[in-house]
Amino acid sequence: MTLLSTSTDQLTTLGAGLRRALDGPFADKRAAARAAFPSDNLLRDPDLSIDDAREWVLNRLIEISEAGVLATGVPQSSEDPGNIADTVVAFETLAHGDLSATIKSGVQLGLFGGAVTNLGTKWHHDTFLADISSLKLLGCYGMTELGHGSDVFSLETTITFIPETDEFEVHSETQGATKAYIGNAAKHGTMAVVFGQLLVRGRNYGVHAILVPIRDDDHTVLPGVTIGDQGHKGGLLGVDNGTMRFHRVRVPRRMLLDRYGGVTEAGEYASSIESPTKRFFTMLSTLVRGRICVSAGAGIAARRGLSIATRYALKRRQFVAPGHSEGVLLADYLIHQRRLLPLIARSYALGFAQNEVTSSLVHVMESGQASEEEKRQLQTRADGIKALTTRFANDAVQEAREACGGAGYLSENQLTGIRADVDVFATFEGDNTVLLQQVAKALLGDYAKIWGELDTAGMVQATARVFGDTVMERTSASTLVERLTATVKRQPEATTLVDRGWHAWMFTERERHSLESLARRARKAGKKFDALNQLGDHMLFVAKAHMERIVLEAFIAAIDATEPGEVREVLERLCSLYALSSIQADRGWFADHGKMSAGRGKAIGAQINALCAELRPDALSLVEGFGIPESWLGAAILED
Amino acid sequence: MTLLSTSTDQLTTLGAGLRRALDGPFADKRAAARAAFPSDNLLRDPDLSIDDAREWVLNRLIEISEAGVLATGVPQSSEDPGNIADTVVAFETLAHGDLSATIKSGVQLGLFGGAVTNLGTKWHHDTFLADISSLKLLGCYGMTELGHGSDVFSLETTITFIPETDEFEVHSETQGATKAYIGNAAKHGTMAVVFGQLLVRGRNYGVHAILVPIRDDDHTVLPGVTIGDQGHKGGLLGVDNGTMRFHRVRVPRRMLLDRYGGVTEAGEYASSIESPTKRFFTMLSTLVRGRICVSAGAGIAARRGLSIATRYALKRRQFVAPGHSEGVLLADYLIHQRRLLPLIARSYALGFAQNEVTSSLVHVMESGQASEEEKRQLQTRADGIKALTTRFANDAVQEAREACGGAGYLSENQLTGIRADVDVFATFEGDNTVLLQQVAKALLGDYAKIWGELDTAGMVQATARVFGDTVMERTSASTLVERLTATVKRQPEATTLVDRGWHAWMFTERERHSLESLARRARKAGKKFDALNQLGDHMLFVAKAHMERIVLEAFIAAIDATEPGEVREVLERLCSLYALSSIQADRGWFADHGKMSAGRGKAIGAQINALCAELRPDALSLVEGFGIPESWLGAAILED
Repeated sequence: MTLLSTSTDQLTTLGAGLRRALDGPFADKRAAARAAFPSDNLLRDPDLSIDDAREWVLNRLIEISEAGVLATGVPQSSEDPGNIADTVVAFETLAHGDLSATIKSGVQLGLFGGAVTNLGTKWHHDTFLADISSLKLLGCYGMTELGHGSDVFSLETTITFIPETDEFEVHSETQGATKAYIGNAAKHGTMAVVFGQLLVRGRNYGVHAILVPIRDDDHTVLPGVTIGDQGHKGGLLGVDNGTMRFHRVRVPRRMLLDRYGGVTEAGEYASSIESPTKRFFTMLSTLVRGRICVSAGAGIAARRGLSIATRYALKRRQFVAPGHSEGVLLADYLIHQRRLLPLIARSYALGFAQNEVTSSLVHVMESGQASEEEKRQLQTRADGIKALTTRFANDAVQEAREACGGAGYLSENQLTGIRADVDVFATFEGDNTVLLQQVAKALLGDYAKIWGELDTAGMVQATARVFGDTVMERTSASTLVERLTATVKRQPEATTLVDRGWHAWMFTERERHSLESLARRARKAGKKFDALNQLGDHMLFVAKAHMERIVLEAFIAAIDATEPGEVREVLERLCSLYALSSIQADRGWFADHGKMSAGRGKAIGAQINALCAELRPDALSLVEGFGIPESWLGAAILED
Repeated sequence: MTLLSTSTDQLTTLGAGLRRALDGPFADKRAAARAAFPSDNLLRDPDLSIDDAREWVLNRLIEISEAGVLATGVPQSSEDPGNIADTVVAFETLAHGDLSATIKSGVQLGLFGGAVTNLGTKWHHDTFLADISSLKLLGCYGMTELGHGSDVFSLETTITFIPETDEFEVHSETQGATKAYIGNAAKHGTMAVVFGQLLVRGRNYGVHAILVPIRDDDHTVLPGVTIGDQGHKGGLLGVDNGTMRFHRVRVPRRMLLDRYGGVTEAGEYASSIESPTKRFFTMLSTLVRGRICVSAGAGIAARRGLSIATRYALKRRQFVAPGHSEGVLLADYLIHQRRLLPLIARSYALGFAQNEVTSSLVHVMESGQASEEEKRQLQTRADGIKALTTRFANDAVQEAREACGGAGYLSENQLTGIRADVDVFATFEGDNTVLLQQVAKALLGDYAKIWGELDTAGMVQATARVFGDTVMERTSASTLVERLTATVKRQPEATTLVDRGWHAWMFTERERHSLESLARRARKAGKKFDALNQLGDHMLFVAKAHMERIVLEAFIAAIDATEPGEVREVLERLCSLYALSSIQADRGWFADHGKMSAGRGKAIGAQINALCAELRPDALSLVEGFGIPESWLGAAILED
C-alpha cells in the first residue's frame, strides 16, 4: 500500500482501490515507476524558445535516465533479453510529464533502439545497445518520406550493395525520397536507422533498414547528408523533428540491420523469409510496441486532462441557484457531469483494454509460444487501440480545456499544452484512418483471399469463420460474456438498461452485423478501386465496432477480477456509462437495424443522467483512480 | 467582377459565382475590404517570443489602420453614426490573417470602443472615439472577473460615488473581483472600461461601466492599479491578456458611461430605465455585435483550414491503386471526401446564416424601427450562431489538420496555429454551453413566466405561442419553407432524400417536438434547482435544433436568391449534404421519435456518399467560393 501513495498523494480508500484495479496486472510495476519517477521538474516552461525547449528536453531525459527510470526493460546487449512490460510502463510514466520528453524517449529507445534490437543481430546489439539506452548514442528512425507518408511499401530511398567495396550506398534520388518528421534529426541525432529499397546486383529485395551515421563527434553533419529543421510545430516543441536526405552515402556492409534479410560475405542476398511481402510485414510488425506505447501515452494524457477539469469542477462555483447561498459547484451541474463523467468512464474502459493489449504484447514477444493467430490479433488490436485512444485523448483533453473556461486556455493550467502535444498522436505511428482500415481488412480475414477468388458460398463461410474466430478467441472475458449474453439474446429488451449482458449483446451485434454486410459488399466489389473505395466509411464503422467490443470485454474482465465491494460497484457503474455512451453514439444504427426499440432508445439518455448522478459523489475518487498524484498535474487553478 | 479577383486570385467561373452567392448582401463591401486589406504581412512567425508577438501584432494593427481597413465603420465622434456592417466586414477581413491581430482589434474597437459608443454619451464620444479608432488610445474591456466568468450579474468590483469630491471610487475588495483575461491589459492599454456594481449613497444600482485610466503617458501603471500578465496561452499569443485589480482608484464623475444610468450633478442616481434587471440586460445587449463578430471570425478560420486541406487533397497522392500508375489523389478517396465535403457544406450553411444575423444586426442597430421581438430574436440568434460556428470552426480546422497528416502538424502549414487561436472562441464572448442555454430559455419565452405561475393549460398555450412566433416570423425563407413542407408533411417518406421540403420538415419537427417536451418538463420542474438542472441536456438539444433550422432556412433563402444555373445546382447539392449530415447526426433521435423509418435511416449514408461524388469534381471551386485568395493561405504545402 505504501507504494501507492507518496506524501503529496493521499488517496481516498475508493480512489486507491480504483487505482489498483486500473493498474491491473501492471500494478506493481506502475507503482514502482511512479515512486522512482523524478517529479520535481516535470513540466516545461511553455515560454521557452525552440532551441531552449530542445535542450531542456534532452536534459530532462538525462535526468530521468540518471534516476534509472528511462531505459527500464531496454536490452543492453545481445545477452540481455530486456523486459517488454517494463519498457511500456516506463513510457507511460514519462507521459505524466512533458510529452516532448516522452516522445523523444520513444524515438530514441522505442524506434531507434527498437529497430536495432528487433531488426539487428548480435554485432549491432553488442556494439550499440548500451550506448543507446544510456543516451550516449542519440539516433533517428528514418522511415517516413515526404512522398510517402503511410505508404511505407513504396519508399523511394535506395540501399544499394556495392560489391567492389563491400559497402552499401544509401541514396535519395528524388525530393520525395527525403525522410521527414524525423525526431532527433534536426539537432541531436548522430546516427539514423534508414529504411529503403534494398538493391543487390540489380535486384530489389524490398524495404530493409540500415544504420547510417549522420553527424560526427563534433556534431557536424556528415558529407552526403542534408538535414532540414522542421522547426515550429503544433506541439512537441521539445522534439527536434527534421528531414534527412542522402546523396550516395556509403556505409560498411555490417551496418545493415540484417535479422530478416541481408547480404552475405559472398555478396549474395540471403533471408530466412522467402516471400518479400511476408518479410516486409514481419519487419513492420516490430513497430507494434511503438504503437502500443503511443496509445498508452495518449491514455495518460487524457487522464491528466480529465483530472485537472474534474478537480477544478469540484472547487469552482458559478451562478447562485434559487435557495442556495453560494454558487453552484460546476460538478453539480448535470451538463457538466455529462461533459466529464462519460469521458472518465471511457478512460477506464480504454485503460483496461490497453492493459490487455500490453499483456498480449508481452506474451507474443517474450513467451516464444505465441501462435500466428495471436500475433495477427496483437497487430490488429494494437492498431485499433491506438486509433481509439489517440482520438479519445484529443477529444477528452479538448473537452477538459473547455470545461475550465478561460482558465483552461492559460498555459499555466496545462490543458492547452497537453492538447497541442497529443494532437499529432492521431496521425503519427500510423495514421488513425489508415489503422482503422487495417483493422477492418484484418477482420475480413486474409485480404487477398477475400478480395479474390472465393465464390459466394465460400465468402459467407469465410466470413463466418473470421467472425467465429474473433468471437471464440475473443478476450479474457470470453466465457463470461457468452454466459452473460446467452439469456439476453432471446429477449434483449426484457433486460434493464444497465444489464451487462444486454450491453455485450448490443456490442456483439453491432460488430457481427456490420462485418457480415461489409464482407458481402467486399465480395461484390472485387478488386476494382472505385468499388472498394466506396466501402471506406463502412470499413471505419466495422473497425470501431470491433474495437468497442474488445474494450467492453476488457472492462467486463476487469470487473470480474475485482473483489465484491465498493470499488467493484463503482466499476460496474462506469462500465454501464461507457457502454450506454457507446450505444447512444450509434443509436441511429441500432434503430435502423432493428436492434433497439424507440422506447428504449429514448430511455438511454435518462439512464446516462442517472448514472452521472450516482457517480457524482465519487468524482474525486474516480480521478484518483487514474493514478496521477495531484501535485504532478501542475495546474495553477488547482492551487489555493 | 474585377473587385472579385486580384492578380494572385484567378477563379474558376463556378468559384467566382459561389463566392458571389456566399458573400450575399455584403458582396460589395467584402470585395472592397479584400482589395484594400494589406496582405503582404498577413501571418505571424510562430517562433516569436510573447513580447515580440505582442509588438508584431500592435504594429500589424497600425499597418492595417494606415491602409484604412481597420476602423471602417467605427464612429469617430458623437456626430458620426458609423456603419455597423462595415465594422463586421472589417473584423471578418482581419480574420484572414493572424488571429491575434483580429482579436486585438476586436478588444480595441469592438469591446473598448464599442462600450464607449454604446454605453457612453456625447462627452465620451467626442473625447475618446477618434483616438480609439486611430489606436492613439489603447484600451481594455474589464468585464470578466476571476470569481465570476459567465455570471456577469454577480460581479464584485464596486464603483462607489463619492459626493464630497464628485468622483467615483473603483475598488476590487476581494481576489475574486480581479478582472481577468483582459486583452490590452498586460502591456498596451492605457485606459479600461471597468464593469462593477454602482453604489450611490449606500444603494446598489447594479452593474454599470466606467472609464478608468490604468497607465500614464510613460506607460507606467497608475497608483492603485495592479496589473498581472497572464502570459502564455493556448493560442493568440499576440494578445496581451492580463488581470487588473483596483484599490480605491478615484476617477471624475463624468468617466461613468452613463447612457443607461448615471449620477446627476446633484449627486443622485438617474436612469431612463426603471427596472435594474432590464437596465442590466439592455447594457449587456450591446455585446451582441462582438458575439456576431466572433462568430464571423470563426467562420473565416474554418474556411481557411478547409481551403488548405482541400487544396492539399487535390495535389497529394498516396498509395497506388490497382490499375493506376501513380498514387491516388487524397481527394479521390471516399473517406477523405467524407471528412472534408460535409464540413465545406456546413461552412456554406453557417455562412448564409451569418449573413442573415449580420443583416438583422444592421436593422436593429441602424433602422431605428426594430421591434422588441426583433431585438430579442437578434440576441437569440447571435448567441446561437456564435455557439454553432465556434464549435464548428474548432472541429473543422482539427479535421483539416489531421487530413493533412504530419504536414498538417508543421506550423508552416498554418493549421495548428489557426486551431490554437480559434480554440478559445468556444468559451470567450459567451461560453458556448451558457449561450445555448440562453437560446433554449429564450425559446421557452419569458423565462420567469414559464418557470413561474402559469397553470398547465397556460403552459401549453405559451409554448404554442413561442413556437408559433418562431415559425411565423422565422426567416427570410418563411413563405418558401411553408410551401416546401406543405405537401411533404402528409407523406414525408414519399419524397427523395434530397427533397428540400423533407429536410425542412425534419428540421422543423426536431425543433417543435423537442421544444414542446422541454416546455412540459420545465413546467413540472418549477423553480427547483435540482429539477431544472435535470433539463440541461434537453435544453442544449433544443437550442441546437432551433439553430440548425435557422441555418437551413438561411441556406434555402440563399439558393432562392441565386439565378438558375451551375452555381445554384452546386448550392443545392451542398444544401442537401448539409441537411443530411445534420439529420444523420441526430438519426437516433429521429428514429426514436417516429420521424424516420429504418429503411430511410439506412439510405442516408449512401446518399451522402453520392453527394460527395457529385461534388468532388467541383472541390476547388467550392473552396474558391470561400473568398480566400490562395496566396493568403500561406501554407507551405500548397507551394510548388
